[in-house]
Amino acid sequence: MEFQPLKGMKDFLPEEMIKRQYVISTVEKVFEKYGFDPFETPVIEDWKLLSAKSGEDLAKQIFKFEDKNGREVGLRAELTPSLARVIVNNPQLPKPFKRYAIAPVWRYEEPQSGRRRQFWQADVDTVGSSSMAADAECIACAVDCMSALGFKEFSVKLNNRKILNGILETVGVDESKRTAALRAIDKIEKVGMEEVAKELEQCGLGKVQVKKLLSLTTSKGKARIKSLNRLCEEGVKELEEILRIGKAFGITKFVKLDFSLARGLDYYTGPIFEIAVKSKTSIGSVAGGGRYDRMIELFGGIPTPATGISLGIERIVEIMKEDGMFDSERTKVMLFIANVDSALLPEAVKIARKMRKKGVACQTDLMNRNLNKQLEYADSAGISYVIVVGERELKSGRFKLKDMAANSEEELPLARIAQKIKSNTKPARNAP
Amino acid sequence: MEFQPLKGMKDFLPEEMIKRQYVISTVEKVFEKYGFDPFETPVIEDWKLLSAKSGEDLAKQIFKFEDKNGREVGLRAELTPSLARVIVNNPQLPKPFKRYAIAPVWRYEEPQSGRRRQFWQADVDTVGSSSMAADAECIACAVDCMSALGFKEFSVKLNNRKILNGILETVGVDESKRTAALRAIDKIEKVGMEEVAKELEQCGLGKVQVKKLLSLTTSKGKARIKSLNRLCEEGVKELEEILRIGKAFGITKFVKLDFSLARGLDYYTGPIFEIAVKSKTSIGSVAGGGRYDRMIELFGGIPTPATGISLGIERIVEIMKEDGMFDSERTKVMLFIANVDSALLPEAVKIARKMRKKGVACQTDLMNRNLNKQLEYADSAGISYVIVVGERELKSGRFKLKDMAANSEEELPLARIAQKIKSNTKPARNAP
Repeated sequence: MEFQPLKGMKDFLPEEMIKRQYVISTVEKVFEKYGFDPFETPVIEDWKLLSAKSGEDLAKQIFKFEDKNGREVGLRAELTPSLARVIVNNPQLPKPFKRYAIAPVWRYEEPQSGRRRQFWQADVDTVGSSSMAADAECIACAVDCMSALGFKEFSVKLNNRKILNGILETVGVDESKRTAALRAIDKIEKVGMEEVAKELEQCGLGKVQVKKLLSLTTSKGKARIKSLNRLCEEGVKELEEILRIGKAFGITKFVKLDFSLARGLDYYTGPIFEIAVKSKTSIGSVAGGGRYDRMIELFGGIPTPATGISLGIERIVEIMKEDGMFDSERTKVMLFIANVDSALLPEAVKIARKMRKKGVACQTDLMNRNLNKQLEYADSAGISYVIVVGERELKSGRFKLKDMAANSEEELPLARIAQKIKSNTKPARNAP
Repeated sequence: MEFQPLKGMKDFLPEEMIKRQYVISTVEKVFEKYGFDPFETPVIEDWKLLSAKSGEDLAKQIFKFEDKNGREVGLRAELTPSLARVIVNNPQLPKPFKRYAIAPVWRYEEPQSGRRRQFWQADVDTVGSSSMAADAECIACAVDCMSALGFKEFSVKLNNRKILNGILETVGVDESKRTAALRAIDKIEKVGMEEVAKELEQCGLGKVQVKKLLSLTTSKGKARIKSLNRLCEEGVKELEEILRIGKAFGITKFVKLDFSLARGLDYYTGPIFEIAVKSKTSIGSVAGGGRYDRMIELFGGIPTPATGISLGIERIVEIMKEDGMFDSERTKVMLFIANVDSALLPEAVKIARKMRKKGVACQTDLMNRNLNKQLEYADSAGISYVIVVGERELKSGRFKLKDMAANSEEELPLARIAQKIKSNTKPARNAP
C-alpha cells in the first residue's frame, strides 16, 4: 500500500500552513471589523441546491454522489447557495444579516497554477439590503483585506449585469445566446478581442452584432452606455451610487468601470466586481462577487436582496509567495529546551511548562538524543532559539540562550529568556 | 424548491459560531505552545487509505463515492490516516514531527446528542518518537486545553493495548474473537458488567473466560496485571513511565489507570487514553487517543512510531453550553453607527472607518431606515453600543454613546468612545 494525495489536492506542511494561517487570520480580522459575523454550513448539501443557480459550468464541476440512502448530494463548489438556504430556513434572522465564512470548496476541474480541486474561499455577504451602500461596503472590505495583507498594486473592476443585459438587448442578441455571449465577453482581457469575436460568432451572433457588442462592452465613457436603454440607465445609476458612497469608504482610487466584466455565475442580478492584483504570477483575479437579489426567493424564501464578495485564499498565498511578501518562518516553535542528559528530561519539561505559561511555544527532546543531535534537530526544524538544561544551569537558574540564526549565545535567567524570545518573534509577513 | 441541511448536518449561526471559534482558538493556542505546528490535508482521500487501518466499524461509516474517473474515494472519517500518508510521502521531514490539525471529519452514523455526520476534530500527533514522554506530552497538552477552556472536573483514563492483548492471551481468547471482545469490554462503564458479559458470550467466549476477562479488566491494582505475562508487564511498565514523566507535566492528579478502556480504532499498538468530563450532559468522553507504531510502515513508509490525541470540538461546545460556561455574546459587532438622516450615511461610514482602524468592529445603516428602526435593529442583533450621527454631533465632534444593555448614555469624543468600547468587550467565556 502506498498513497498520494488525489489529483488536484494538496497537503499543506507547516511551512506553508503558517502562511495560509496568516492570510486567513488577517482577512478574518478585517471581516469582523466590518461588522460581519462568523458562520458555518455543512460541506455536503443536496445536489439540487448546489447546482440550481450557479450555472452549467459550475454544476458540471460539482463532486456529486449518492449517499447511503440513495439521495443525490454533493460537496459545495461555493459558499453562497448554503447561505441562501440558511436565510430561507431562518426567517427570524435580523436584517441586514452580515456574515463571513472562510472554508474549503471543491470543484472538479483541471488543476493548474493557483487552481486546485479543493481550495478555500473567504466570503462576506450582506443579506437583506438593496442599497448600493451594501455593495460598496463589500468592495471596501475586500480592498481593506488586500491592503492589510500588504498589497499595493491592485484594482477593482466594476460592472453591472443590468448593463450587460441592456447591451445584449440593444445589440439584439437572442435570449438563448446570452449566457454563452457573456462567457465569451468575460475573456476579452485574457485572450484578446479577436479570439472573443470568433467565439461570439460561434455562438451564432452576426458579424455586425459582434462588432457592436465588442465596441459597447469595451467603451470607456459611461454616458454612451447610460443612454442606450432603460436597463443600461438603471445599471449605470447603480454604479454611480457605488462610486458616490465609495468615496466615504475610500475605495474610489481602486475602482475602474469595465463593461466587459461578466463573471461566471448565473445568479448575479446587479453590480458585479472583481479584484485583480499586479504580480509576478499569471494569476490575475483574487476576489470577485456581486449582487444576487433573486436567489433566496428562488429557494423558497421571501424576496430578499443580497450581495457579497469572495476572496481566493490559495491565489492570494500563491502571489504573496511569488512576490516575496512572506517572512521565511518555517515553524511556530520559538524555543527548543535541550538537555545534557536524558535523565534531566523531567527538569526540561518543567521549564517548558513555565515557558508555555509565559506564551513561549517550545519543545523538549522526545528522542533520548545526545546534546549534539538535539541541536541538529532544532536547527533542521528551523527553531530560532535553544537553551541547554544541565545540573549547573538548574542550580544557578541561569541558562545559555543560543540564537540559532545569529550563532550567538548569552546567559540569562528564565524570565528574561521568555521576554527576549517573545520580543524577537517576527510576524509571518515582511513589513510593507 | 426548498432545502434543509442534510440529516445529521448542522448550520452554525453566528451566536453558536462565536462559541465554536472560542473553543477552537483556545485549543489552537495551547497546541502551539506545546510545540505542535499547523498542518492541513485534503478532505477527500483514496478510500483504501481511509479504510485500511481504522477498523470495520469506522470503515462502514465512511462517505464513499466514485470520482468522475471512477476512482473509489471518500471523505475522511478521522485525521490520522492522512497524517500517516504525508509522513510516507515526505521522508525528509525532521523527526519528531509534531503537528496539529483542527478540521471537520465525516461519519455516516445515526445522529444523536453531540454526535453528527459532520464534526470537527482537533488533533495533536507526535511522529517519530517511541518515548513515553511523547504520549505523556500529548495527554498534558489535552489536559491543558481542558483547563484553558475552564473545565475543572475531568479525568484521563489510561490503558495500554499491550495489557489488553496480554489479558486476552492469558484468558485464552481466540485471535479471531479479540476485536469483538475488546469492543464489548470498552462498554463496561456505559452499559454495565452484565450486558457486557452477555455480549462476550455472544462473541463465543466461555462463561469462565468471560468471568476472568471481566475480573482482570476491572481490577484496580497494577501489580496483579503486571505479573500475568510478558505483554502485560511491558504494557504496565510503559504506563509507569508515562506516570513518572507525567509528574513533570503536572498531569498525575488527572490520570486514572483503567484496564477496561479499549477505544474503537484498530491501529493502536501501545498506550491508549481518553478524557472524560463530569457535566450536566450525557456526553462523557471529549478526547481520546493513543500510540500507533505500525501505521506508517503499513502505508509503505519506514517503520516510524507515532502517538496522538484528538479532541471533539462539538462535544466540548455542547458541554460548555449546557454547563453555562459561555458568555451570552450573540455577535462580534461592538458598535452600531446610526444616522438621523440617510443623507448622513457617508459621514457615518467615515466614522466607521476611523473606528475600524482602532479595532472596533462596527456596522452602519444599510437599509435607509429611520433612527428608531436603526436602534431596534441594533438591539435585535445584540449589538452592545450605538452612537448617533447628526449635524450637531458632526460639528462638535462629540457623540452620544448608548449602552444598549445598561440603557444609559454619555457624550464622548470618538477616540474615547473607541477606548471605552474596547475596554468593555467581554471574553466569549465566563471567567472561571
